[in-house]
Parts: sequence; structure tokens; C-alpha cells
Amino acid sequence: MYLPEQFREIDPAEIADIIAAAPLGCVVAQTSAALVANHMPLLADKDGTLVGHIALANDMHRLVAEGQDVLVIFQGVDGYVSPNFYPSKAEHHRHVPTWNYQVVHMHGTISFQHDERSKRAAVGLLTRQHERRLNGDKAWRMADAPDDYMTDMLGKIVGFRIAVTRTIAKSKLSQNRDQRDFDGAVERLEKAGDTALADRMAARRNGAE
Amino acid sequence: MYLPEQFREIDPAEIADIIAAAPLGCVVAQTSAALVANHMPLLADKDGTLVGHIALANDMHRLVAEGQDVLVIFQGVDGYVSPNFYPSKAEHHRHVPTWNYQVVHMHGTISFQHDERSKRAAVGLLTRQHERRLNGDKAWRMADAPDDYMTDMLGKIVGFRIAVTRTIAKSKLSQNRDQRDFDGAVERLEKAGDTALADRMAARRNGAE
Repeated sequence: MYLPEQFREIDPAEIADIIAAAPLGCVVAQTSAALVANHMPLLADKDGTLVGHIALANDMHRLVAEGQDVLVIFQGVDGYVSPNFYPSKAEHHRHVPTWNYQVVHMHGTISFQHDERSKRAAVGLLTRQHERRLNGDKAWRMADAPDDYMTDMLGKIVGFRIAVTRTIAKSKLSQNRDQRDFDGAVERLEKAGDTALADRMAARRNGAE
Repeated sequence: MYLPEQFREIDPAEIADIIAAAPLGCVVAQTSAALVANHMPLLADKDGTLVGHIALANDMHRLVAEGQDVLVIFQGVDGYVSPNFYPSKAEHHRHVPTWNYQVVHMHGTISFQHDERSKRAAVGLLTRQHERRLNGDKAWRMADAPDDYMTDMLGKIVGFRIAVTRTIAKSKLSQNRDQRDFDGAVERLEKAGDTALADRMAARRNGAE
């Protein structure tokens, strides 16, 4: 990924935030036929390994070899930034449009798990995370479902783990603009309804100061 | 991409909508070193060719060969769907969590343009689209900027076109649920703040009826 130094994201907390806010990862792999991409929620295990699962019917675990290098993409907030957003534009008109965004790329080697214990662990990890955030005390648990049903469902998925070898993250959030133009961009993005991007820009700038 | 028939998106208008709502494409290519992905706004030309531009400093146009196959990913709305969203869950508990999302994958061959005319056309196409939507009559135009500045900026980018050979789109929007569970999911997603996903689900279901 093209990554000018000013947009390189090196803060582990910010990288974790980007993933937590956009956990639907995209796993891309080169296969003999073509590039193949699949989308699924992913979570980092305690040791940083990415954990997920796919349908048994998903050819990914047949087309992608055990130990193969894959690329995982997490796409965070994004939005169009007009030159009109910058107060300084009216003075010298030396601005062009751009696009702000946050993304995380993780390269790693993938392994697949077919045993029920690993699959149960992967489902449990993902479920706990999302249920707790959404439903708190009323979180759905695997134990809520009948045993025969859960066993049947677990039989229809394959677990996988991606041992991350390299993480590259980009926060392109107008941090290369002076305070006045930056504030103008945040204000106008908010007005345009791009509040998630505006909030992220403001939070990151304030956090860095 | 794993694509059960019920989630295959074949409506050209819906596919165009997904891209229009999430125009920040991700261009992925296999290089001799590794998989490389870059993010940039993309637009379809009249003949369906994807048009974009990157920084001259972006190695993509050096690492990726003229005419090479690339994969373009447009990631639309997405969100977690809890079993608790379904009214029928309380009756039989035979539900598991899932993730709803819309994505478009386009496979195609890439070519790069270094001449100013092509680059000006690419920038013009993208700018018009986003400025009109955002600023209407007050849209920024390339002509607003001084000539020497625009010439300098155009010298710092490379245009590219992707001739699309295959489009695969997925709308995983609970359309496999009965009306009561579907309505429950829309309602609970709205309550949880996932309004973009809830709106998309409702609009697509209503449009299909």
C-alpha cells in the first residue's frame, strides 16, 4: 500500500480501534485460478493471531493451501474531502479534492481447523465480543441453542487462524493540513453527514496533542 | 467469493447503488513480492471501465504490469446480526449469529495512463461526480485552481483504467429469513444504530416485492 510517512498509522491502540469499529475483514489470497476474496468478522486472539470461520461450503479452505500467505484488509471510515472545505481555498485556490480513510492491512499465513473444539472456540470468541457489546447482560450464548442444533451448525463451518507477519495501517485524516483547514474539513464533513469520519479525525487529532 | 444463490446480487441497479454509496474501491494485485492493495475512489466510465488515479509515488504502477489481472473490492454496508433479533428465536432457539453485508468484486485488466489528457479526464470524471453530489451549484471545478498548480498536481499522479471482465456481487441481507424475523432484524439493527444496514435491508426487500 502506498503509505506516505505522514499517513502511517503506528499507534497500536488506534489500529485496534480501526479493527474493532470495522471487524468485517476481507481475506484475499492468490489461487491458481484467480485472486479470491472473502469477507467475515475477525478477531485477534491473545497472541495477536486473527481468528475466524467460514462455511464448509466456502471453497476458500480448498483453494488456499495450509500455510499460504494471505492479505487481510480492514476498511475503516472514509469520505470525500472537497477543496471547498478548506478556508484557505478562498485565498489561493491551491487545493484539489482528496479522499480520507483509515485502513489496516495484515499479511500472514493461514491455517484451517476442522476439529469441533477449535471451531467452538472461534465461534465463542466472536460471539462473546459482539454479543456483549450489543446485548450486555442479555447476550446470546451458544448454550442458548439446543445441543443437536449447535453440533449440526459447527459441522457446517471450518475454523481458521492467520498468524500475522506484517501489519501496515494508514490514517489519512487531513493531519497534513493546518489547524484552520483541518477544522474546516471536520466541520463540513459533519454537515455533509460524514459524522463517523469527522469524529475520527477530531478524536485522533486531539488524542495526538 | 463464497456466494450461495440466495445471496447472489444480480440487479445492475443494486450493484451500481452499492458502488455509488461506497466508491472507495480497493485494488488488489499479486506482485512478485506480495499481495498489494491500494484504496482509491473509482468510477465507471460510460462503457463500464473503472477509472481512477494514484500518486506517481505509489509503486502500484511499477509493481503491477500493464494488462495484469487485478481484483477490485467495493465494500458496502455491514453489521452484526444477533440471534436475539429474531422473534422466532424465543420459540425454538435454533439460530446462530451472522453478519450481513453487501460487497461487489470486479475482476479486470489494468492499464496505466501517463499523458496529461487522460489524467485530466480521470480527475474531471471523479471530481464532477463527488462535487455535484456534495456542493451542487457551488461545486469545485478544476478551473477554480490556477493553471500552474493544476499542471503541477497532474504531474504527480498516474491515471489507470480497469477493463472489467467479471463482476460478482453479494447482498447478504437476511433475505433468507421469514417476514417476521426479517422485520425483527431491521428493527433491532435500527435500534442498535446500524441504520445504514437496516435501511438497505428494508429498501431491497420492498424493492423486490
